[in-house]
Amino acid sequence: MRQAGRYLPEYRALRERASFLELCKTPDLACEATLQPIRRFGFDAAILFCDILVPLEAMGLPVVFTEERGPILPNPVRVADDVARLSVPDPEAAMPFVPEAIRRLRRALDPLGVPLLGFCGAPLTLAAYAVEGGGSKTGTFARLKSLLYADPQTARALLDKLARTSADYLAAQIRAGAHAVQIFDTWAGALAPRDFDEFAFPYAQQIVEELHRRHPKTPVILYVNGGAPLLERLAATGADVIGLDWRVDIAEARVRLGSRPVQGNLDPCTLFAPAEVIAERATAIVRAAGGTGHILNLGHGIGPDTPIAGVEALVKTIRALAP
Amino acid sequence: MRQAGRYLPEYRALRERASFLELCKTPDLACEATLQPIRRFGFDAAILFCDILVPLEAMGLPVVFTEERGPILPNPVRVADDVARLSVPDPEAAMPFVPEAIRRLRRALDPLGVPLLGFCGAPLTLAAYAVEGGGSKTGTFARLKSLLYADPQTARALLDKLARTSADYLAAQIRAGAHAVQIFDTWAGALAPRDFDEFAFPYAQQIVEELHRRHPKTPVILYVNGGAPLLERLAATGADVIGLDWRVDIAEARVRLGSRPVQGNLDPCTLFAPAEVIAERATAIVRAAGGTGHILNLGHGIGPDTPIAGVEALVKTIRALAP
Repeated sequence: MRQAGRYLPEYRALRERASFLELCKTPDLACEATLQPIRRFGFDAAILFCDILVPLEAMGLPVVFTEERGPILPNPVRVADDVARLSVPDPEAAMPFVPEAIRRLRRALDPLGVPLLGFCGAPLTLAAYAVEGGGSKTGTFARLKSLLYADPQTARALLDKLARTSADYLAAQIRAGAHAVQIFDTWAGALAPRDFDEFAFPYAQQIVEELHRRHPKTPVILYVNGGAPLLERLAATGADVIGLDWRVDIAEARVRLGSRPVQGNLDPCTLFAPAEVIAERATAIVRAAGGTGHILNLGHGIGPDTPIAGVEALVKTIRALAP
Repeated sequence: MRQAGRYLPEYRALRERASFLELCKTPDLACEATLQPIRRFGFDAAILFCDILVPLEAMGLPVVFTEERGPILPNPVRVADDVARLSVPDPEAAMPFVPEAIRRLRRALDPLGVPLLGFCGAPLTLAAYAVEGGGSKTGTFARLKSLLYADPQTARALLDKLARTSADYLAAQIRAGAHAVQIFDTWAGALAPRDFDEFAFPYAQQIVEELHRRHPKTPVILYVNGGAPLLERLAATGADVIGLDWRVDIAEARVRLGSRPVQGNLDPCTLFAPAEVIAERATAIVRAAGGTGHILNLGHGIGPDTPIAGVEALVKTIRALAP
């Protein structure tokens, strides 16, 4: 999950020097943003600083990041011709700054013994941004779902291009040195299960299988926000680790997932609580998870207003549990 | 679920004459808004036109409805004193326009043989608006959760007042003539299960029990948006009918809920699809639900841009299935 961000004064200082997209695209700055939370908190793993929409731009869809309205895609994908115009880019050529940042990060992180995680957005989530032209204004994804329902063939062509791009992109991250990669699905939880089966599952599975074929030793983590009703389906993609948000009991999730390792599932808002509440809740999750095969993590990326003291209390608790 | 709204030209005409809140508070206008979708589509039941935030205003929390930013509560509830200042109002005195609209609606609907449903927002959802001061800007409910975690005693005092107000409010709706009532929980699905158990469940149960005591023959429907992981908990409140959103397979939900009747669970975005897709999907839900104990309905309120032809296709399909 996202570790860097506006909750850190050193990140805000970095953002005064460069736009969000410049941070993503400049290896030195992306490295700095990646390393800031590691330096401050000493996390057990580092997460590449980037944005899930970077590959959309590389496919031929410009993305504008705005402070007020979030990302905007001025040329949304609505019809078959829009999909036909998208490329499946060579990530080394189209997004060289990402593998370059990873190579530099490995040089900084290896001496610390801290592994590096890469990531991409899941095809369904990228399709949501591409079709809606940004975030869904009403939160209903009416445009995306209209495409899925009215023109599933075009939707499938888009999702297939996104899956191939994502697999190549994650493979490039692994070749550059990422120790594990996460497929991050922000929006598939907004689908009915039958739509998940048709429009999210096959494309997540396609990425997992392609990565397992090319890089069999690199773990692939699959996270679906709001995925509690879908856990068995997430395991069926073949992903090595299932990321859990906070809206599912982790003990129940582990029963449903069998021996599959999990990460999660602390509500990011817990970090706004007093230290003793954070300690109690993190400890309860570690205990309920059963002790092995569990990476303690937030159930979603850290929020911009999060108090630093909350993160410190969490790290202190976890270090005391598993020194 | 909400039937009236901006997708209807006759509703937009009504809104040219009065603000949203004036519609809610003027029995003649609320009746007209309630009856418009019944006249046009001939639904099997009518839903009172009102807003879940009306009782908050009656408790002493002003609400301003804005086109751009949705409802705003200029004096949010943050500390114990804010809760102490809230009243548990007599609904007949503080919101006389609601029972009056119901009495008038019964006179219009009885000759048509159409029953009338009342509703209220669930305490957790009302608390979310009260504490956030409107919708959650970031969608994370950080302010609400901060209160739940840091000051659970104040949160419980607020939730208890909201539950007592809601029970009185629904009882007044039943006395005025509502045939059934729904407790509408938009936001409890954003909680971790343990927080649902502590801050949502007891207050929904409190309303159900109070209504069963006062009006044992009136069915109470409980709907939680994003409630798929919580179905067994929803049944345990004692609610007579469980409302399902679209993010759960209805066949699975019926197994988990036993003999409990359900309503739902068509994705409202389905109405944007071609007629044959709407027909296939509605039919699939009716079949998967097993034929009895199921009220076909959308899994959430109807959206403002919904095409009227989509609603017509849905009604035609259902009439053909169960004439």
